[in-house]
Amino acid sequence: MTARVLLPWTDLTVPADLEAAYYDGSGAPPEGLDGIEFYVLPYDSGPEPPKLIPRLPSLKAVQALSAGVDNLLPLIPEGVQLANGRGLHDLSVAEHTLALILAAQHDLPRWFRQQPEGSWAREHTRSLADCRVLLVGYGSIGKAIERYLVAGEAEVVRVASRARDGVHGIDELPELLPGADIVVLVLPDTPGTRGLLGARELAALPQDALVVNVGRGTAIDTDALTTAVAEGRVRAALDVLDPEPLPSGHPLWTLPGAIITPHVAGGSASFYPRAKRLVEQQLVRFAKGETLANLVG
Amino acid sequence: MTARVLLPWTDLTVPADLEAAYYDGSGAPPEGLDGIEFYVLPYDSGPEPPKLIPRLPSLKAVQALSAGVDNLLPLIPEGVQLANGRGLHDLSVAEHTLALILAAQHDLPRWFRQQPEGSWAREHTRSLADCRVLLVGYGSIGKAIERYLVAGEAEVVRVASRARDGVHGIDELPELLPGADIVVLVLPDTPGTRGLLGARELAALPQDALVVNVGRGTAIDTDALTTAVAEGRVRAALDVLDPEPLPSGHPLWTLPGAIITPHVAGGSASFYPRAKRLVEQQLVRFAKGETLANLVG
Repeated sequence: MTARVLLPWTDLTVPADLEAAYYDGSGAPPEGLDGIEFYVLPYDSGPEPPKLIPRLPSLKAVQALSAGVDNLLPLIPEGVQLANGRGLHDLSVAEHTLALILAAQHDLPRWFRQQPEGSWAREHTRSLADCRVLLVGYGSIGKAIERYLVAGEAEVVRVASRARDGVHGIDELPELLPGADIVVLVLPDTPGTRGLLGARELAALPQDALVVNVGRGTAIDTDALTTAVAEGRVRAALDVLDPEPLPSGHPLWTLPGAIITPHVAGGSASFYPRAKRLVEQQLVRFAKGETLANLVG
Repeated sequence: MTARVLLPWTDLTVPADLEAAYYDGSGAPPEGLDGIEFYVLPYDSGPEPPKLIPRLPSLKAVQALSAGVDNLLPLIPEGVQLANGRGLHDLSVAEHTLALILAAQHDLPRWFRQQPEGSWAREHTRSLADCRVLLVGYGSIGKAIERYLVAGEAEVVRVASRARDGVHGIDELPELLPGADIVVLVLPDTPGTRGLLGARELAALPQDALVVNVGRGTAIDTDALTTAVAEGRVRAALDVLDPEPLPSGHPLWTLPGAIITPHVAGGSASFYPRAKRLVEQQLVRFAKGETLANLVG
């Protein structure tokens, strides 16, 4: 018996006993949705792909390619398995995090502004080395970021939702913030993380501290951060915001001391070969009737 | 007997049997130059500080705070010791190198251009992970850069002037260039490194390769690089150029695919505590009549 699978890319190796249909999230989905048993969601392709899930009556399993799947959970029917893309974005997000930190510490916005003018004006900059970095969120992305920070001789203070050996609990933040040069947030959007950095927490940071967010925008009170950056008390380098997109007229866009990238940390080239490998392994498992990896819930 | 020393910073701890005078490279030098035996040159302070050397008749030793001292050698009288600032800038230059690489791979110039417009336009970017990086120059700065690259799961191919275990010789470059995604040059200015990357070498690189230079500008033929970047064959991220300053009307300044910072890699905050520590240790050695560290020649 041949099971049908719905895949985002045509260059995947598919086991012989599976029949593949393809949907990359653009245009109309293919014919024969009735028979689809395994659906690999196209990555970062807008709101349409998840809407297909209720139209697949034979569905047994869904593979997401993002690490966070909170928004998918309500769509998954009873008895259908959901696997996430844990680990696929770790290096990409870690690279982007370092890019944001180093851009802020080494004044890249200044040099890039000067460049079209052909200006050789110079100044000394901040460093990453010797900085104390609060790494808030210590899953696989946090660990990938930590490897970079250790290579650069920054001092890493690990913080996670639950305290454990070598890792502070998130409830210790009030005591940790005053000693931080840089705070990196790598947190999912949960009731426990929303508004984690508000006016009080930002006020506890030392003058000139750098706030970096690559997890979910909701972890920071955007209004409070905007005020703190506008007053020159802290700097910010953000790939995620609340709301997204940040409205084009929002004052944070143009504040000196704020660096904003439009939620692109996870989408760099290192994702694709890792995603391809995971999907091909999952297809083999599915064809053999084995348990999928990365199951959620 | 009290020896006189000339120092760039007033917050250094000076052994009791030394008498300190201060000169930070700006304004007039202090009185009493006749008695100065040990001169610590101010860092990155223009052409004046070295000119003082011939005016110090009691001079026994000079401490430079840069790693390269080629331009000082002709000024050092017979019998005067010269120590360099080897290692003081390693982390600073490594950070800046990573900043340049990640800025180029993760399209920071694009995001920074979009920011004042409040634009959330997104695209996927290149990565550093999985890239093959030719690291040309494998001294202490090269090793600091390598630690970052390894943390980011790039593949590092080491190249140095002389081949040794695990390190290719610079004469192997022609065979190595076609396989490189990124070439990082961390080389001093010597007859053997001048013009190392010319038109032929740049043509040997794959389409879209990234050329990074944080050593000395003379290692690259600027005209040939400008042509290759203008044609969209390679990208460039440069902290050092030939000549410096790059003239304000030079076409490289405004080419898409070129990132230029004005020779600032070594001058970040992590330099100062390391330089202070070295100078204080050297002062102790000098006071005790011991051999200085970091002697040149």
